[in-house]
Amino acid sequence: MPEKFVYADNAATTRVSQSVLDAMLPYFGEEYGNPSSLHSKGREASAALGDARARIAKLLGAKESEIYFTASGSEADNWAAKGAAYANRDRGRHIVSTKIEHHAVLNSLKALEREGFEVTLVDVDQGGRVSPEAVANAVREDTVLVSVMTANNEVGTIEPIAEISAAVKQKNRKTLIFTDAVQAAGTLRLDVRELGVDMLSLSGHKLHAPKGVGALYIRNGIRVSNLIDGGGQERSRRGGTENLPYIIGLAKALEDAVAGIDENARVSAMRDRLIDGILDKIPYTRLNGAREQRLPGNVNISFDYIEGESLLLWLDMNGICASTGSACSSASLEASHVLLALGVPVESAHGSLRLSLGRDNTDDDVDYILRVLPGIVERLRAMSPLYEKVNGSKI
Amino acid sequence: MPEKFVYADNAATTRVSQSVLDAMLPYFGEEYGNPSSLHSKGREASAALGDARARIAKLLGAKESEIYFTASGSEADNWAAKGAAYANRDRGRHIVSTKIEHHAVLNSLKALEREGFEVTLVDVDQGGRVSPEAVANAVREDTVLVSVMTANNEVGTIEPIAEISAAVKQKNRKTLIFTDAVQAAGTLRLDVRELGVDMLSLSGHKLHAPKGVGALYIRNGIRVSNLIDGGGQERSRRGGTENLPYIIGLAKALEDAVAGIDENARVSAMRDRLIDGILDKIPYTRLNGAREQRLPGNVNISFDYIEGESLLLWLDMNGICASTGSACSSASLEASHVLLALGVPVESAHGSLRLSLGRDNTDDDVDYILRVLPGIVERLRAMSPLYEKVNGSKI
Repeated sequence: MPEKFVYADNAATTRVSQSVLDAMLPYFGEEYGNPSSLHSKGREASAALGDARARIAKLLGAKESEIYFTASGSEADNWAAKGAAYANRDRGRHIVSTKIEHHAVLNSLKALEREGFEVTLVDVDQGGRVSPEAVANAVREDTVLVSVMTANNEVGTIEPIAEISAAVKQKNRKTLIFTDAVQAAGTLRLDVRELGVDMLSLSGHKLHAPKGVGALYIRNGIRVSNLIDGGGQERSRRGGTENLPYIIGLAKALEDAVAGIDENARVSAMRDRLIDGILDKIPYTRLNGAREQRLPGNVNISFDYIEGESLLLWLDMNGICASTGSACSSASLEASHVLLALGVPVESAHGSLRLSLGRDNTDDDVDYILRVLPGIVERLRAMSPLYEKVNGSKI
Repeated sequence: MPEKFVYADNAATTRVSQSVLDAMLPYFGEEYGNPSSLHSKGREASAALGDARARIAKLLGAKESEIYFTASGSEADNWAAKGAAYANRDRGRHIVSTKIEHHAVLNSLKALEREGFEVTLVDVDQGGRVSPEAVANAVREDTVLVSVMTANNEVGTIEPIAEISAAVKQKNRKTLIFTDAVQAAGTLRLDVRELGVDMLSLSGHKLHAPKGVGALYIRNGIRVSNLIDGGGQERSRRGGTENLPYIIGLAKALEDAVAGIDENARVSAMRDRLIDGILDKIPYTRLNGAREQRLPGNVNISFDYIEGESLLLWLDMNGICASTGSACSSASLEASHVLLALGVPVESAHGSLRLSLGRDNTDDDVDYILRVLPGIVERLRAMSPLYEKVNGSKI
């Protein structure tokens, strides 16, 4: 057994908090009605659903009628990208996005390309930053959709969405703007009007609600086709009996996150201490993603001469949960598309480590990582023929 | 407060059972890993996911690699219909289904029609039964998909899926066969090989698992496009972090249902006593759907001269939860498309009541309904000018 357990993979998923679980539990037991049923059990469920929707809308600066519940951030991303593209294809078939989007967006865009849409992916700078000018320049008369994430899940870069929206709308006021806020929600304050977006997605399990619930903001009046057809649920825009326990949990989790927004300062301080400590203690390392405009909990560092996967497993044996690339693509052997887009060399991308901190982490966790990590890196490098050469030449 | 509470709307949704809740709870708390993460928390989650998949596969006579988790029966229905149609459109653009499918299927087919597919909906007989010959006759050289539900959600008719599959495959062996088993799963024994289907959908909340989880069986080797693109989850066929608690709950609920299959006899006996009691005690009533090959818990009766909605509200005031039409479309004012397809006159369709019993119901529940219902019907009819005429003329 390792001396300590440190969960530093909060960008992959978070633990369901006690307050969220407590809020959900009645809806598994006594409050099991179907919100579409007309009897009292159904009406109680329907009232609870409406209440959760109103609370979430308020936190996002949206109207209640603009919030739609989904089963994941991925579903919301697919719905936004495909739904906006299909519903507006009479106006054009061009879409603009970036090279660092989540696979839920990128693979939705690939599916749209197979259906005759044209996709332009703009570059990002070395820090992972998307330029509003670059996006606006890519927008054409036939651009129906711009999709740029609020913050990147791998390197934590926070994108200038409000500026991007303004620049895009100035170029083509008919172009719809979607932002995947899955990694941002729960940490950043999000106001759909201030951001100037037409659609925004978020996911519960990134903010201490369970895996299996998300939401999509769709501005009233825009055309978006359904992804899941069915009964009259979600104002006939998303079929499927509503997952009331998780929806209640999502509302509670978002409220908790907004109420605890001051935690960001503490988490950011831990993040900075971790980044500085690693860069200081371990040679041949580099921080991926910009220092500024970075999500509070995100640490992403490349360690030359080692494989990220080996590093992960050694950290795991020492009780530290982290990731390389994103969890969603961790099973693949490809180098992170995000790091490559930032200009990180393939070898360094393979030797990258993401430590993502959250409100459950403590200074002790940071101390422990900083104590354990250097030795692991040293041991792994000792086994690397490449490193031996470099290190040998240094002595 | 009514003297008794009777939940007779189990076809709309069921209460999460204690055994299912107990199975799920650890996955909200300690076992919160993302199954895609490589560290120990992730690997534990991944193992639990694989175990649930294997158990469900076994219960359905499928291979583990043929089970995909979704967030609802509706998502599974959409995925099957749209995914099979799109992936095979080079072979043809014709689809055969029936007039009594769930809206998740019918509205998916409507969406496909807007994309250039042609849909033939075969008729059903007065009992709601789909004829294998009628389906096979509708199948053409360019028919890529046949979609027939295993059992109807409104009138409970169990369809001859194995016979339909055989007839279809004989006509066109390339035609894929999908059955929406959402209402059947948990009551009927389902074996995908015996049924001869290529795809089968089911939903958790109809069988005492929560709302927000479903599964789709996709036979190995057939082509089905993704509905939700994303990361590598579900063998890269369905993006989104897996809803592990509910998936564990679904496996448990399906096991409980199969283990408790003998309950069907008791539920069927209650159903028959309820049907006979109503038809016997209350004039101007008719049973909708065939007596034979009927789901154990389904009672669907039309009461002439009254509105189903008024009946529901009066039953509700007496503590009885029931439905008219299906919960999914209860908010709409249209008469049930299922009842109309069975040849029920519009007025009678509007005066229909579905009482759906489940394993939590008792003989006392049936007694109570039979005691309360006749008086309510009488009172409502007394207010109906139409009934006054008929009744007056009878005296």
